[in-house]
Amino acid sequence: MPDVELPFTRQEYKSRLTAVRTEMAARGIEVLFTCDPSNMAWLTGYDGWSFYVHQGVIIGPTGDPVYWGRAMDAVGASKTCYMAMDDIIGYPDNYVMSTERHAMEHLSHTMNDRGWGHLTLGVELENYYYSAKAHAVLTNAHGGKFVDATALINWQRAVKSETELTYMNRAARIVEKMHARVFEIFEPGKRKNEVAAEIYRTGIWGAEDSDGIFGGDYAAICPLLPTGEEAAAAHLTWNDKPIPNNSGTFFELAGCYKRYHVPLSRTIWLGEPPKDITHAEQVVLEGIDAGINAAVAGNTTGDVARAFYAVLNKYGVERDGRCGYPIGLSYPPDWGERTYSIRPEDDTVLEPNMTFHFMPALWMPDWGLEITETLRICATGAAQPLADVPRKLFVKK
Amino acid sequence: MPDVELPFTRQEYKSRLTAVRTEMAARGIEVLFTCDPSNMAWLTGYDGWSFYVHQGVIIGPTGDPVYWGRAMDAVGASKTCYMAMDDIIGYPDNYVMSTERHAMEHLSHTMNDRGWGHLTLGVELENYYYSAKAHAVLTNAHGGKFVDATALINWQRAVKSETELTYMNRAARIVEKMHARVFEIFEPGKRKNEVAAEIYRTGIWGAEDSDGIFGGDYAAICPLLPTGEEAAAAHLTWNDKPIPNNSGTFFELAGCYKRYHVPLSRTIWLGEPPKDITHAEQVVLEGIDAGINAAVAGNTTGDVARAFYAVLNKYGVERDGRCGYPIGLSYPPDWGERTYSIRPEDDTVLEPNMTFHFMPALWMPDWGLEITETLRICATGAAQPLADVPRKLFVKK
Repeated sequence: MPDVELPFTRQEYKSRLTAVRTEMAARGIEVLFTCDPSNMAWLTGYDGWSFYVHQGVIIGPTGDPVYWGRAMDAVGASKTCYMAMDDIIGYPDNYVMSTERHAMEHLSHTMNDRGWGHLTLGVELENYYYSAKAHAVLTNAHGGKFVDATALINWQRAVKSETELTYMNRAARIVEKMHARVFEIFEPGKRKNEVAAEIYRTGIWGAEDSDGIFGGDYAAICPLLPTGEEAAAAHLTWNDKPIPNNSGTFFELAGCYKRYHVPLSRTIWLGEPPKDITHAEQVVLEGIDAGINAAVAGNTTGDVARAFYAVLNKYGVERDGRCGYPIGLSYPPDWGERTYSIRPEDDTVLEPNMTFHFMPALWMPDWGLEITETLRICATGAAQPLADVPRKLFVKK
Repeated sequence: MPDVELPFTRQEYKSRLTAVRTEMAARGIEVLFTCDPSNMAWLTGYDGWSFYVHQGVIIGPTGDPVYWGRAMDAVGASKTCYMAMDDIIGYPDNYVMSTERHAMEHLSHTMNDRGWGHLTLGVELENYYYSAKAHAVLTNAHGGKFVDATALINWQRAVKSETELTYMNRAARIVEKMHARVFEIFEPGKRKNEVAAEIYRTGIWGAEDSDGIFGGDYAAICPLLPTGEEAAAAHLTWNDKPIPNNSGTFFELAGCYKRYHVPLSRTIWLGEPPKDITHAEQVVLEGIDAGINAAVAGNTTGDVARAFYAVLNKYGVERDGRCGYPIGLSYPPDWGERTYSIRPEDDTVLEPNMTFHFMPALWMPDWGLEITETLRICATGAAQPLADVPRKLFVKK
């Protein structure tokens, strides 16, 4: 066995593989190809910023998973994955950004070499890293049937193990420090990008717990910190202009440790907050309490959303859409796990140690208020917020 | 016209649109849908971290481009794009992460509404944000023919305008500061993540030029700074372990200003560098000189690669693959423009103000050496390196 330092025990990787193979069997999938970097990491330990070229992990009917990627990244796989070198396959560089040959042809050869060329193949049709072209080429090349396996592995990741929760708790320590630092330095006149710079520095510098000091990782989404009317839009990034006084800015940030995320948003008002903001704060806080109290093992994701929306309706606040999503191991461009959603029409049953970002943000025409929590479903009782950041609108006068 | 602060003049956006429509006509494309966030920004000004859900820009036969995306991101579009609100279309939140409905159905309705439902449609089959599923749904829904328009817009971005070069020069000032700061703080025993934290802080804090101070943006790839044997792999990210003495670490970093990138790599050796490293340094430096001197308007990308490889061959150093790629406006997961490559078999003719990352890195079995430059093709003579960082192996004893 290769001498690689892994984030999880080989036993844990083995049980993940078993869970995936059980679900493959249930869906009639004989070979599964995943190119979701989060799934790849979860199954094998692979960790590198190489998802901008075609790569993936193949789970055949037997044996260890097979890493397949660009030759230079197979070197990275040999330093991060638990599999032996026989199960780490690199393709030549002339497949990269070529209009003459496509990496999926090489993937097909790889599967043929193992006698899997006519088996029923599961692929993630709805994934950032599985392009329409990749599917067309693989469809031409592969001799077996195809089954859509979108989110098959993602669903196996929903309930977190003890070690995963340890990592998420570290990410929670990091995001606590990030928000504390933001509140310290945020002030009128400072350039917005300087605040973003300090957020990155704090998050990657890391934090400490009873086991000592630990470093942070890059989050799968950049810090979001829009001010004023910009905060009415959910996903604008920073600029280099001075921060205005008498304005609200929300900070949607995630601590990240070994690729495990804990996102958490807070809003800072500079100056005296207007009444509609402090009213919205009270509504959202009451809504969050209601949501957390409904986030109980055995209840559904829809129960959480309905509890939150019932409070909004009581106060006549209009909002619709998702108010949360599962969270854990992730790579850009999204830190969500892309399985269930916290919304009224979703009926996923909550189980202990599921973790999600409860995201009851309000985006109004000329302001936005984000006060959010990452929650863990407990064996009994209300969900536990992983991070401990005062839950309120922060005000600096 | 909406009162939006744009990074380019409306005239520049207009000429970009004209260039795209000319190429569409040449390929028989009546409507073009682009979901590459870089293409979207280049055509409309749109800027936001929203590419993790389906979105895009539609270029119809006449009129302004149409932004199409999630309703909450259409708000962001109204604050960053030059188009009027009639050309900014949001889809409801219940299309997001749904297994019942797909955003591409909404896109199809949007095109039908404009009378484009039976026109020949160009789509980017090979793009991170155009999934196999998206294409399948759109193929079902759209009444016209499909044409693969992968990289059609990317190619229009190859030659940079004056304002684009201004932004890239600012990115160059930023990457100079990043490398200077790394050399200051890099030392044995320091945790690797603390160096990564300081790289982020420095890059986003920004730099200054004769027009004053300006802030940095997030780069489309995270900082890469592998040490020792890890540096034999191209794309591993940092950890939180102490940096060992007597080791080499390469720093592949990009300065980023208004989404325009200038990547540049340097390598630092802590201690006395072994002879094979200093020999490799000399070979690479001579190879870079040869490449830069061949990077002349009228020559081809293949000429640059062959000039570099001729030097490597002279010294018996083995390497193959790409040694560069076009660079400019970009979003995660890649800062390359994904059109031409600097490699022997590529025959793209170089034109003035094309910009590429000349990337003649050496990855050996137990070390890696990266000394790279981002180059601008000049009207006459050798290419101009955009950043001014001493071109050598850095040594700290």
